[in-house]
Amino acid sequence: MKQIRHLKEAGGAGFVDRYTRKADTLLQPWTGREKGKYGLVGLPLSKPSISHSGASLAPGAIRKALAGYSTYSGETGIELEDTIIDFGDFYMDPTDVTGNQERLVEGMKDAYETEAAEHMIMLGGDHSISHATIKARSDQGLRIGVIQFDAHHDLRNTEDGGPTNGTPFRRLIEEEAIAGHDLVQIGIRDFSNAKAYSDYAAEKGVHVYTMGDVKEKSIRTILKKELERLAHVVDEIYLSIDMDVVDQAFAPGCPAVGPGGWIVIPY
Amino acid sequence: MKQIRHLKEAGGAGFVDRYTRKADTLLQPWTGREKGKYGLVGLPLSKPSISHSGASLAPGAIRKALAGYSTYSGETGIELEDTIIDFGDFYMDPTDVTGNQERLVEGMKDAYETEAAEHMIMLGGDHSISHATIKARSDQGLRIGVIQFDAHHDLRNTEDGGPTNGTPFRRLIEEEAIAGHDLVQIGIRDFSNAKAYSDYAAEKGVHVYTMGDVKEKSIRTILKKELERLAHVVDEIYLSIDMDVVDQAFAPGCPAVGPGGWIVIPY
Amino acid sequence: MKQIRHLKEAGGAGFVDRYTRKADTLLQPWTGREKGKYGLVGLPLSKPSISHSGASLAPGAIRKALAGYSTYSGETGIELEDTIIDFGDFYMDPTDVTGNQERLVEGMKDAYETEAAEHMIMLGGDHSISHATIKARSDQGLRIGVIQFDAHHDLRNTEDGGPTNGTPFRRLIEEEAIAGHDLVQIGIRDFSNAKAYSDYAAEKGVHVYTMGDVKEKSIRTILKKELERLAHVVDEIYLSIDMDVVDQAFAPGCPAVGPGGWIVIPY
Amino acid sequence: MKQIRHLKEAGGAGFVDRYTRKADTLLQPWTGREKGKYGLVGLPLSKPSISHSGASLAPGAIRKALAGYSTYSGETGIELEDTIIDFGDFYMDPTDVTGNQERLVEGMKDAYETEAAEHMIMLGGDHSISHATIKARSDQGLRIGVIQFDAHHDLRNTEDGGPTNGTPFRRLIEEEAIAGHDLVQIGIRDFSNAKAYSDYAAEKGVHVYTMGDVKEKSIRTILKKELERLAHVVDEIYLSIDMDVVDQAFAPGCPAVGPGGWIVIPY
Amino acid sequence: MKQIRHLKEAGGAGFVDRYTRKADTLLQPWTGREKGKYGLVGLPLSKPSISHSGASLAPGAIRKALAGYSTYSGETGIELEDTIIDFGDFYMDPTDVTGNQERLVEGMKDAYETEAAEHMIMLGGDHSISHATIKARSDQGLRIGVIQFDAHHDLRNTEDGGPTNGTPFRRLIEEEAIAGHDLVQIGIRDFSNAKAYSDYAAEKGVHVYTMGDVKEKSIRTILKKELERLAHVVDEIYLSIDMDVVDQAFAPGCPAVGPGGWIVIPY
Amino acid sequence: MKQIRHLKEAGGAGFVDRYTRKADTLLQPWTGREKGKYGLVGLPLSKPSISHSGASLAPGAIRKALAGYSTYSGETGIELEDTIIDFGDFYMDPTDVTGNQERLVEGMKDAYETEAAEHMIMLGGDHSISHATIKARSDQGLRIGVIQFDAHHDLRNTEDGGPTNGTPFRRLIEEEAIAGHDLVQIGIRDFSNAKAYSDYAAEKGVHVYTMGDVKEKSIRTILKKELERLAHVVDEIYLSIDMDVVDQAFAPGCPAVGPGGWIVIPY
Repeated sequence: MKQIRHLKEAGGAGFVDRYTRKADTLLQPWTGREKGKYGLVGLPLSKPSISHSGASLAPGAIRKALAGYSTYSGETGIELEDTIIDFGDFYMDPTDVTGNQERLVEGMKDAYETEAAEHMIMLGGDHSISHATIKARSDQGLRIGVIQFDAHHDLRNTEDGGPTNGTPFRRLIEEEAIAGHDLVQIGIRDFSNAKAYSDYAAEKGVHVYTMGDVKEKSIRTILKKELERLAHVVDEIYLSIDMDVVDQAFAPGCPAVGPGGWIVIPY
Repeated sequence: MKQIRHLKEAGGAGFVDRYTRKADTLLQPWTGREKGKYGLVGLPLSKPSISHSGASLAPGAIRKALAGYSTYSGETGIELEDTIIDFGDFYMDPTDVTGNQERLVEGMKDAYETEAAEHMIMLGGDHSISHATIKARSDQGLRIGVIQFDAHHDLRNTEDGGPTNGTPFRRLIEEEAIAGHDLVQIGIRDFSNAKAYSDYAAEKGVHVYTMGDVKEKSIRTILKKELERLAHVVDEIYLSIDMDVVDQAFAPGCPAVGPGGWIVIPY
Repeated sequence: MKQIRHLKEAGGAGFVDRYTRKADTLLQPWTGREKGKYGLVGLPLSKPSISHSGASLAPGAIRKALAGYSTYSGETGIELEDTIIDFGDFYMDPTDVTGNQERLVEGMKDAYETEAAEHMIMLGGDHSISHATIKARSDQGLRIGVIQFDAHHDLRNTEDGGPTNGTPFRRLIEEEAIAGHDLVQIGIRDFSNAKAYSDYAAEKGVHVYTMGDVKEKSIRTILKKELERLAHVVDEIYLSIDMDVVDQAFAPGCPAVGPGGWIVIPY
Repeated sequence: MKQIRHLKEAGGAGFVDRYTRKADTLLQPWTGREKGKYGLVGLPLSKPSISHSGASLAPGAIRKALAGYSTYSGETGIELEDTIIDFGDFYMDPTDVTGNQERLVEGMKDAYETEAAEHMIMLGGDHSISHATIKARSDQGLRIGVIQFDAHHDLRNTEDGGPTNGTPFRRLIEEEAIAGHDLVQIGIRDFSNAKAYSDYAAEKGVHVYTMGDVKEKSIRTILKKELERLAHVVDEIYLSIDMDVVDQAFAPGCPAVGPGGWIVIPY
Repeated sequence: MKQIRHLKEAGGAGFVDRYTRKADTLLQPWTGREKGKYGLVGLPLSKPSISHSGASLAPGAIRKALAGYSTYSGETGIELEDTIIDFGDFYMDPTDVTGNQERLVEGMKDAYETEAAEHMIMLGGDHSISHATIKARSDQGLRIGVIQFDAHHDLRNTEDGGPTNGTPFRRLIEEEAIAGHDLVQIGIRDFSNAKAYSDYAAEKGVHVYTMGDVKEKSIRTILKKELERLAHVVDEIYLSIDMDVVDQAFAPGCPAVGPGGWIVIPY
Repeated sequence: MKQIRHLKEAGGAGFVDRYTRKADTLLQPWTGREKGKYGLVGLPLSKPSISHSGASLAPGAIRKALAGYSTYSGETGIELEDTIIDFGDFYMDPTDVTGNQERLVEGMKDAYETEAAEHMIMLGGDHSISHATIKARSDQGLRIGVIQFDAHHDLRNTEDGGPTNGTPFRRLIEEEAIAGHDLVQIGIRDFSNAKAYSDYAAEKGVHVYTMGDVKEKSIRTILKKELERLAHVVDEIYLSIDMDVVDQAFAPGCPAVGPGGWIVIPY
C-alpha cells in the first residue's frame, strides 16, 4: 500500500509535543469490559431548565476542553496515570422531557451496576440530572451524603413546573432517596432563594452554608467538618457542582449566575 | 365572556414559582398618592459623557434585572417587604443636553418635595446626573454629605467640555451645594486621574481614599469612620456609585473602567 | 397633588415625534370585550425543537421590534388604522413539553371561539406550534388550506423524537386536520430534507415548490396560482412562515437556517 | 548614527507589496497650501441622534478601512492618481451639542472658502451633519441640488427634539437653504416614515423615489433623469448617503437600519 | 456483559431521524484500501496569510458543518450515494511555514498516486495551498486547467513576503506548472487588486472575468464557454474557490472579504 | 492662509482636558538622536504560536490603550515625566517565520547598541520573542537574570515544532545565553505543564514558584528574595510577562489562558 507522506487522521494535523500528555488522552471509550478507578458519563439534558439554557452542550464541551490541560500537577508532583472510562452520553428524546429524566435513572442504575469504575463522574445537563444520578445510586440500597456547591437551594416545589432544574434535592428528600441532614449546601447566595425554601431546608435538617459562612469560616474548614461528619454515617459521598456557585465574571455563559459568587483563590 | 384557557398577559407565559417573590415585584408605579420607605427614579442621560456611553439604557436594564433576584436574604433572615415607589424616568431631549441637566434639577426638586419616599434611589445615566440629584436636594436647604464610590475624582474643570460626566462634584463644590470636606471619595485609582484634580480635592478638603487605602484599611473601616464623622455634621448622606469603581473583569461594558478596581469579596 | 416636572412613566423618557405613529401602538391588550380586524397571540414554546433554539423569546422580541416601524406605507399611501387585539401569551410549563402542545390546542380553540378578531396572527415558538394553531381551527369544522414558507417539509415521522418542530404538517395530515393537497410548501431547499419526506409529500399530494421553482416561476406567480386554487376549495387559508426559509445572511440567529434561501428583493 | 536593522515606524511592521498602492495612501494631510481635486473632512458628531449611535466613530473607521482597498479599478482600467486632501476632523464639544452643529456650519464655510478642493467629501457623524455641510455651501450663494440616498425622509419637525438626525432637510427647506424641488430622495422605505412627512415632502415638491420605485425603474434610470433635470437648474449637486438606505444584512451596525433596503447588485 | 440502557457513544445522544441521512455520514476514513469516486483531504495551513487568518480551522469546521445537510436534492431527485474517502489532514509544523508548503506538495503527490479517488476535494487553509495541490498534480505530467473563483488575482510577486496566500497562481505560472491561458479567474473585484497584477494576468494570457463581467454575461454563460474551451486542451480541470469571492454579508468571518461580491442567487 | 475654524487633525476631534496628561503622550518617536530613561519597541510576531494567536496585534493595541491612562499616581504622588522613546516595530515577513526570529535578534542588538534608553520595554508578539530580546542582550556579554511571570515553563523541546512560543527559555539555556539558576519562574500552574519540563527546570536549577507557592508566600516576598539574590550575581534583570499568568476572567482574549491564575489584588 502506498503511504501518504505527512498525513494524519482528520483533525490530527496540529502540533504535538512528545513529552506532553493531554488530559483528554486519559479518556477511554467503554466497550463493556473495562474496569478502572474513574468512569465518566454525559447526561446532556437541559430542557427541564427554567432559564434559557445550553447546558446540554456541556458534556461535549468539557471533553474537548480536557485537551487544553496536561496530566501533571507540579504543585504535588503527581502525574495522572489512571484512565477514565468514558461510557458515552445518554440518549435524549427531544420532546419527552420527563421521560428523559426517568431513562436517566434507568441508565445510571445500569452504569453503577457494571461496577466498572470505582468513582463515577457525571457531566450534565442542568441540575435536574442530579436527581437521576443520586436516585439511581440510592436505589441500590446505599445511604448517600451530598455535598452541593450551589448558589441556590434547588429545593423548589414540583407543583409549579414539574421536575425542573430547581427541584432535584426536594425530590430526593421527598422520595426518601436522601435524608435532609445528609445534604450539605455550600455557597447559598443572598437574594437568590425564596424564604420558603430556606425554611424547608431548615425543617429537613439540611446543613446550609451561605457565601457569608464560606467567607467567615473558609471553605476548607467547612468541608473538613462536614466530610468528617458524613464519613461516619453515609456509605458514599456525592459531590454536586452547580456552575452558578461561581461568580458571573468567571462563568459568564451560565444562565442563572450572578455577582457575589466564588472566585478563584486570590494571591 | 368566553375565557381563553392557559392565557396570560403578553410576556407573562414564563415559569412562576408560587413561593418565590421576585425583586421586581417590589416596584410600584407612582400615581401621585403613594407614600413609602423607598422611591426610585430613572435619569437616562448619557450624552454628557466624554466616552461612547450606553448608560442611558441602565434604568430600564436595572429594572428588568431585578426579576433575576428574590426578595430574601438568607444570611440575615430578612424578607424585603417594603414596596419601592417607581416614579418613572425623566424626559430626555435628544439635542438639548445641558437643558436636560437643568430639567433634571427641576424634576428632582419636585420629586423630593412630594415627600413620597423616605429614601430615594436614582438610576443614571452617566455620572453627570449626580450633580442634578444632589443640587436639587441641597437647594432644599439641607447639608448633604456624599460617599462616592469611584475610580475617578470627577472634579474636572468645566471650561473644557462643559458639564460632562467628569465634573459633577466640581460643580457642586463651586456652586456651594456641598462642602469639600463633606465629600468622601473611595476607590480612586492610580493613573486614572490628573494631578491637578488630586490637588483640587486636597485643597477643598475632600476625603480621598485610593484603592491602596481601601486595601490597607478595608472598606468597612473606612465607611464606619466616615459615616460616623458625617453623621454629626450633615443632614443627609448621599451614596453615589460610579460603576467604574469595579474592576473591568466584573463590569466589562462600562466605558472608562480598567484593571485594579473592586472585585467581589473573595473566599 | 404635587406634579413632578418632566416625569414620564418608566421606559417612557425617550424621544417622541408627535406626527409619527409607531406600529407597536396598534397593539391593544385584550380585556374580553374587544372586537376587531386583527388579533395577535404568542405561543412561546421552543423546547420541542431538535436544534438548540431560542424561538420562545420571539413573541416578546417581535412585539418590541414593532416600535421600530411606523404605521405608514408610502408606496401605497396606506396608513394602518386598525388596532390589533393582543391576547397575550399562552402559559408554558417548563417540563411538560407535550402537555404544552395540547394546551395550545385548547387555548387556540378558545381564542378562535371568542370571534374577537377576523384575522389571527400567531407568534411562535418553533414550528411545532403550527400543529396546535391549525388543529384548533380545523376542529371547528373548517377546511383549512395552508401556504407554508419553509426550507423544510416539516413532515418528519413522530416515532423518532415525538411531536418535534419537524413534524407539524405530518401530524396534521395523519390526524386528517388538513388534506395533503390543501398544503402548499414554498421554498423547499436542496440538501435540507430527506428523500423519504419528499416522497411522503408527493404521495399525499402536497404542492411543493423548491427554491429552484421559486426562482424560475417567481413567488408572485406561484402564490397567485395556489391562492386561486385554494380559494375555491377551502374555508380559510393559513400562512405559516418558518424563518429558515430566509437566507442565513438575513436571519443569522435562526438555528436550522442555511445558504440558498430567500433574500430581500434586490434592485 | 547607528542604524537599527529591520526597524519600521510604529504600526509599520506589516506586509507591503511594492506594486500595490493602498487607497489610504491617497490621503494627504492639509497644511494650508494644498490644492487638489478632492478634499475630505470628518464631522464626528452623533449625539443629536435619536437612536443610540456610534456614528461619531465613522470618520476614523472609514479612513482606516481605506487601507483594505487598492487604487485600481480593473473594470475601467483606471488607476486613482489624485491625492485627497485630508483636512482633518472638526472639534466636538461633549456637552454643547447644538453648538457643535453651529460650529460645523462655520468650519464648513471656512473649508469651502479655502477653495483647496474641487470636490469635498464629508464623513459624518449622524445625518444631522448634512444640514451644516449644505447650509454652509448655500450661504456662499450657490443653489444646491441634493440627491439623498435614505430609507427616511429626514424631514421631521424640530419642535420635538430639536435639530436631530431626523431633521436636516426640513431645516434646510425652512431656512430656504435649498428648495424642495431641488431635493431628490431615493430609497424611501415603507413603514419607516410618518404620513405627515410624506405629505410635507409632496407639499414642498421634493422628488421622492421609494424602494418600490427603485425596483420598478432601476436606480440608473432614476439617477440619469434627476441628474439631468438638476444639472440645468442648480449650481452644484450634493450627494447625501444615509447608511440606513442599505439592507440591514449589509450594514448590521447601523442603528435605524431595517429589512427591505439596498443590497449589492446580484449576479 | 451488562448492557447500559439508553447509552450512546460520546456525542451521540442527540436526535436521530431514521429516514434522514446526514451528509457527514458520507465521509469514510481512509485506511489505505478504499477506492471511490470522491476523496477529501484537509490542508490546515493559514500562517502564510498576509491577513490575520483562522483558515486553518476550516477543514474541521467544514467536516462538522456537513452534519447540517442531508444527502438529498429535491430539485434534481438525486440522493447522494457515493461515499467520500476522508484521507485526513496533513501535518502542519508550527514554525516551518514554507516547509509545510513543500510537504503539502509531497503529500498531495502521494495522495494522487494512490488513485483511490476519481475526484479529489481539498479543504484549505489559505489560498497558498492551491499552489501545492495543483503543483503536485502537474508534476504527474498532466496539463491542468484552473477555474478560480476569487476577488483577487492572487498573482503577487514573491519577493515581497515569499509564498503568501496572494501568490499561488504566480508561482504556478512561473514554475510552468500551469499556462496562463489555462487559468480562468472569475469574480475579480474593483479596488481589490493592483494594476501591476492585472497587467501580469493580461501578459500571461489569463482569462479574467470581473464582477462586472459576471453581472453582464452571467456566471453560467462564462462557465459554459470556458469549460468547453479548456475541455479541448487540458487533461484535468481544477476548481479553486477563494471564499472572499463572496460578498462580506455572506461570509462575515473571511479576512480579506469586502462588499460587491457574489451573493446567493435572488428570487 | 485662510484658517478653518474648529478644525483639528484627523482623529483629533475628541474631548481634551487641559489639565490631564494622557500616558500615550509620553511616547516620542525615535529619530536616531534621542537619549532617555525608557525605550519601547514592538515585536509583532505571533506566527510561531502553537495556539491560534492574535498577539501580533498587541504592540499597536497597547500603544493605543495608553490613551486610556493618565500619567499620575495618586497613591505615590508621582507624575510620570520621562518620555518613552518609541523605536517603532520590527518588520515581520509573512512566510519566513524563523527568519523573523533571527532578524529580531539582529534588530534588538542594534537597538541595545544605540544606548538610547536606560531601560527597554519590548512588546510582543508571542512569548517566542523573549528568546530574541534576551539573546541579543546576552550576546553583548552581559549576564542576564530573568524573572518570568507565566503559567507555563516555556521550556519545551524544539524538535517538535521548532522555536515555538513554548520554547524561548529552553533555547536560551541550551545556547548558554542564560543560566538555569538565573531564571525565576513565577505563577507556574497545575495541569498546564508536562512533567518532563518540570524535571528539566529542576535539573537546570531554574527557580520555580507555582501558584500554590505564590499563594502561600506572597508575590512580594518571592520577588524580594529573588531580586536580592539575582542582584548580586547578574548584570541585568529582565522581566518577561506572559499574559496567560493572569486568570482567564481577567484576560479573556489570551489563547492558552485558563482558570486559577493571577487576579487583581482584592480588597
